[in-house]
Amino acid sequence: MAKEITERSEDYSRWYNDIVKKAGLAEHSAVRGCMVIKPYGYAIWEKIQSQLDKMFKETGHVNAYFPLFIPKSFLSREAAHVEGFAKECAVVTHYRLMNGKDGEGIVVDPEAKLEEELIVRPTSETIIWNTYRDWINSYRDLPLLINQWANVVRWEMRTRLFLRTAEFLWQEGHTAHATEKEAIEEAQLMQRVYAEFAEQHMAMPVLQGSKSVNERFAGAVETYTIEALMQDGKALQAGTSHFLGQNFAKAFDVKFLNEKNQESYVWATSWGVSTRLMGALIMSHSDDDGLVLPPRLAPTQVVIVPIPKPSPAIIEVANRIKDGLGENGISIKVDLDEKKRPGFKFAEYEMMGIPVRIGIGMRDLEKGVVEIARRDTKEKKLIPVEDSVSYVVNLLEEIQQALFDRALQFRNEHISSADDWDQFVALLDDKGGFVSAHWDGTGETETRIKELTKATIRCIPNDQKQEEGICILSGNPSQGRVIFARAY
Amino acid sequence: MAKEITERSEDYSRWYNDIVKKAGLAEHSAVRGCMVIKPYGYAIWEKIQSQLDKMFKETGHVNAYFPLFIPKSFLSREAAHVEGFAKECAVVTHYRLMNGKDGEGIVVDPEAKLEEELIVRPTSETIIWNTYRDWINSYRDLPLLINQWANVVRWEMRTRLFLRTAEFLWQEGHTAHATEKEAIEEAQLMQRVYAEFAEQHMAMPVLQGSKSVNERFAGAVETYTIEALMQDGKALQAGTSHFLGQNFAKAFDVKFLNEKNQESYVWATSWGVSTRLMGALIMSHSDDDGLVLPPRLAPTQVVIVPIPKPSPAIIEVANRIKDGLGENGISIKVDLDEKKRPGFKFAEYEMMGIPVRIGIGMRDLEKGVVEIARRDTKEKKLIPVEDSVSYVVNLLEEIQQALFDRALQFRNEHISSADDWDQFVALLDDKGGFVSAHWDGTGETETRIKELTKATIRCIPNDQKQEEGICILSGNPSQGRVIFARAY
Repeated sequence: MAKEITERSEDYSRWYNDIVKKAGLAEHSAVRGCMVIKPYGYAIWEKIQSQLDKMFKETGHVNAYFPLFIPKSFLSREAAHVEGFAKECAVVTHYRLMNGKDGEGIVVDPEAKLEEELIVRPTSETIIWNTYRDWINSYRDLPLLINQWANVVRWEMRTRLFLRTAEFLWQEGHTAHATEKEAIEEAQLMQRVYAEFAEQHMAMPVLQGSKSVNERFAGAVETYTIEALMQDGKALQAGTSHFLGQNFAKAFDVKFLNEKNQESYVWATSWGVSTRLMGALIMSHSDDDGLVLPPRLAPTQVVIVPIPKPSPAIIEVANRIKDGLGENGISIKVDLDEKKRPGFKFAEYEMMGIPVRIGIGMRDLEKGVVEIARRDTKEKKLIPVEDSVSYVVNLLEEIQQALFDRALQFRNEHISSADDWDQFVALLDDKGGFVSAHWDGTGETETRIKELTKATIRCIPNDQKQEEGICILSGNPSQGRVIFARAY
Repeated sequence: MAKEITERSEDYSRWYNDIVKKAGLAEHSAVRGCMVIKPYGYAIWEKIQSQLDKMFKETGHVNAYFPLFIPKSFLSREAAHVEGFAKECAVVTHYRLMNGKDGEGIVVDPEAKLEEELIVRPTSETIIWNTYRDWINSYRDLPLLINQWANVVRWEMRTRLFLRTAEFLWQEGHTAHATEKEAIEEAQLMQRVYAEFAEQHMAMPVLQGSKSVNERFAGAVETYTIEALMQDGKALQAGTSHFLGQNFAKAFDVKFLNEKNQESYVWATSWGVSTRLMGALIMSHSDDDGLVLPPRLAPTQVVIVPIPKPSPAIIEVANRIKDGLGENGISIKVDLDEKKRPGFKFAEYEMMGIPVRIGIGMRDLEKGVVEIARRDTKEKKLIPVEDSVSYVVNLLEEIQQALFDRALQFRNEHISSADDWDQFVALLDDKGGFVSAHWDGTGETETRIKELTKATIRCIPNDQKQEEGICILSGNPSQGRVIFARAY
């Protein structure tokens, strides 16, 4: 099986597609730009969802559900928002089909035209803030800390499985606050929650910062982002959290009476991550033999394979280990299928990125040991049966940490500083990764840099140092370095 | 608060709407026919989802995700299916908006017309079976046991919150099998899973049976159903499971090679329950003071209210009970809000249907007792503090059982037998509920009965007795009784 994967060094993009396909994660559907998330891919997404949902609830949020459709006029209410989202979207214009004339099949019933077109939500600020108007009257109704798990549609012309699809799954938090300070703190809190999830669960280090004006969410006053680095040296925006000011409250007339009985517009945030995280996860750790998953997000963490095939003694030991690991909350599969040979199974489980494989052979068993292999390094060890459970429990933690450490080292090796234009271009072309450089703070310069190099400002880092400098392109003064990269 | 609810005896339909609104479960949105599921309603739906998902996985199913959109031509492939689903649906015809001429705002870009219209899925058999064609080649690929949690849209003209909305949330299982027998067994298994969920978790007794031809799912060979009875004597179809024969396999050319290397079409099932269950849950148990929830589906199972307000001694006892209940896996809220008076809180938690309320007052505490009230019967008891945790643990089980027993008694009292037409009509008009009667087995008679009485055949019960009889309308011979009712 492994042979069928294109090597990263040969064609990174094909390598990615091969893994998505051969590990059974997703595929293109009959509908342009829409993907089918296959059972194994969805099982990983469920692990992502469940952990994020827990973290959202621990920080005081609750879930709700708002309509799939947005009246066209709602999109126009917030000036910047409409520019960003009202362009490429799926428009519902009719609500009925009918039998056509002979041979035509079914056709759209021209009588059933909607008075106002409905847009399939590309994001839900407008419909949600239109709803919040009735929910918020007084400071006692605030804060409102609501999240939604949903599908959204953005009519992308060039799609890639998980990374950019017309329909994708995501969560979108939409919170309402009495003060500007509280809303900013909420947006920053969610940036930290995303960063913690990325680093602790996806084993994917991220830079935290805010976006330049050009890269801000359409309708936001400030966009906070987490930025990861893929193995090919390209950056990937993994999650964003927006401070929306009073923009949507003003657009939808959402006011409240404060404790002094004064009327004021409500302050807002929104924040989201999507099935794009699946793409980030795949590209962070996988290798030329297939997917590599961090143990915390692996639907099956351990697989036991009898060598060459099951015998009563092997099954007895397999079940004992299975029960022991189960008691430790570890998900495990015992593969007793006799139609497939061990070598085939090994390759299959490597492709699927199962973190730990336990091989149980008769000859090893006579010596009281089993063979424990880790997916990330391919290292194998013979471990006494009675120690195997505690060994595996520790090994899973070790793998989780090792994946993070390796990714962190790679990321840190790929943050470079450029002090002039030639150096900047050379770094992007020859080394890739993040490039820290001075920029004059204008959108014009940023646009020009993007046109010349395809690199964008990924973020103005949260820990940016105040430092006098000269913009790499314009030569104008700069107060600090920002992070550039070519990005997904 | 409770006063604000219309009494059931006065206007059952307004009573229902009042509860949905005042318990904060859902509301109508700005988009015709689409609802907003509010946080408390969504929290109950999450409990429903989580339990069902567990039961699906225990019976060998996995989750996946298929596209929101279905090409128009797909709907035409299965003749019965298109009749049932291609009529009232949301049709996407364009993929772009643009700035209109001055003053027009944004308008649909006429250039961006789709070659083939896309239908927002009303159900996913067609897109899924189109996908299964590539997934199934051999008997080794079978069975395929897949479920999807998703939103669907059916353009309903008359909508009611949860019971009938244009967009709703649901799960849809779609399985593929090598033999007819296995597919029928799967469809029947899922009927039993739904019945077990309804009875054990929703505390809602159901009749299990199959549908008449008229009431079958469009495209099914057999539809298995679970039918519940609401407090107003109307039936509610709570879940259906369909044996689809080879209809969709033939429509989408899904064949496999069996063990003898012979090619054959694949056998199919599909099965689903939706947010309609929320409506069934509300109407099964609630009363004129608000929602009544079975403990297994209550997001908060116990609330503690200090009387009249918190003191250190009260808080200490409250936290002790909270910890004790938490150790038993019970979800609990301690309400220390001093701005609201206990009477107000009592009414609020009754409205929300929280199964158990613990009142802690200083005078009671001096005697070492707390007041424990159950929502279903309103019964209150003084219980020694040290016994309160075990008392509540048992009480929650008792309430779960009591709700089921009460609903079962009501349901059993409302299954009547009719032996002639006048008796049939009188039972429907005067008593309501299920009416067991002979029917000649024809769709014509069934349609005529529906026209005359608004009653439909809810099911041909799984445990139907073979019994010679005379059809109540046509007088033609019948082999057994079927269950009629007016239904939601």
